[in-house]
Amino acid sequence: MEFTETAATRRSVHQYSDEEISQSTLDAIFEHVTLTPSGYNLQPWEFLALREEETQTALKAVANGQEHVTAADTAVVVLGNTDPMAHAEVVFDDWLAKDYIPNQDVRSALLENVESMANVPEAERRIWTTRSSSLAAMTLMYAAWEQGVASCPMEGFDSDALVETFDIPDGYEPVMLVTLGYPPADAADIENERKGRRPVEEVVHYEAFEPSETTRVETPDITE
Amino acid sequence: MEFTETAATRRSVHQYSDEEISQSTLDAIFEHVTLTPSGYNLQPWEFLALREEETQTALKAVANGQEHVTAADTAVVVLGNTDPMAHAEVVFDDWLAKDYIPNQDVRSALLENVESMANVPEAERRIWTTRSSSLAAMTLMYAAWEQGVASCPMEGFDSDALVETFDIPDGYEPVMLVTLGYPPADAADIENERKGRRPVEEVVHYEAFEPSETTRVETPDITE
Repeated sequence: MEFTETAATRRSVHQYSDEEISQSTLDAIFEHVTLTPSGYNLQPWEFLALREEETQTALKAVANGQEHVTAADTAVVVLGNTDPMAHAEVVFDDWLAKDYIPNQDVRSALLENVESMANVPEAERRIWTTRSSSLAAMTLMYAAWEQGVASCPMEGFDSDALVETFDIPDGYEPVMLVTLGYPPADAADIENERKGRRPVEEVVHYEAFEPSETTRVETPDITE
Repeated sequence: MEFTETAATRRSVHQYSDEEISQSTLDAIFEHVTLTPSGYNLQPWEFLALREEETQTALKAVANGQEHVTAADTAVVVLGNTDPMAHAEVVFDDWLAKDYIPNQDVRSALLENVESMANVPEAERRIWTTRSSSLAAMTLMYAAWEQGVASCPMEGFDSDALVETFDIPDGYEPVMLVTLGYPPADAADIENERKGRRPVEEVVHYEAFEPSETTRVETPDITE
């Protein structure tokens, strides 16, 4: 469907049918996720995809017992590598091979830039990886919906417990969870009136930023 | 266009033509941005949109002098409100009005949850707002491309200097910059071979997370 329709009809869905997502559909979804932009094309994202009852139950236990974790066909833990250098050399080799940069000197200068990003405090590197990994998570939700697969992003989980449960090595930030599954025909989350949104005139500020002192939310009426 | 095509053909573009983006096109783009999901639907995003030469020049000065800031029709500073409570009451009024929650007691319990999120250290609240605001930034880039408007996300800027230059009040995180503009007919960034991506089999891990010890990047060959 048109992207405008994808955005307008996508809803966060907590109920899923028993229909299985095929491996080829999951692959197609993630193919599009890899096209997400990232700073210096460093692609810090990793996806832990849980489809088995045992692993989903373990995830649910660290995610406030939220039922849709186990109801989902696939529950995805979006992880962000907090080391900007992790993939830098290979990425800049690609730039050099494709003439994005003219020579090894420029490649070395770029690596120095990324090295300086890698030397900032961990708190800043967590923000750095959250940024690109969240861009990828948004692509995941749109790419899924394009295939008829509904999704629900979740940030309510115990990050430390998740890291321990799934033996996540040091240096990876659990950014968010995204559940995936086909919605039932009468999914309440799709049928219900859409939750309100802060209107464009409240969130977009031309030339100077003066935040609104009050909040309004309006039910979106765009359908494409 | 189909979302799969939107994702496959979107490129990060640094050159822009002189063609102006109409206000109605910008409004349509941002209408779709407001449909982005966020934790508890709290919508912490704000967008400072700079179209004048003076404000773009000021942004360029705090963004490493990057030329596409002033070449763009509109340079957007994506800001994230670090206070989860900022819009919570009005958002939960909307939930109550639409029967997402049954009564005032549940509304109060939700407000308590969000209040506890608001009491975590600032470093965690910066990550919290980066998450949802980055989801919105990704929607911005897809919604723009759907309208023929190219974009480029940027994280190379001096955050403190930006806050000072634009008098950003305390409590807002500059998450990233996104430049917007129509690409010239022969835009190198669209014509050039696409930068490589870490392949699906390297970034998606089923049931257990064992990061790859090496990095591969491949030129994406999907066109829709």
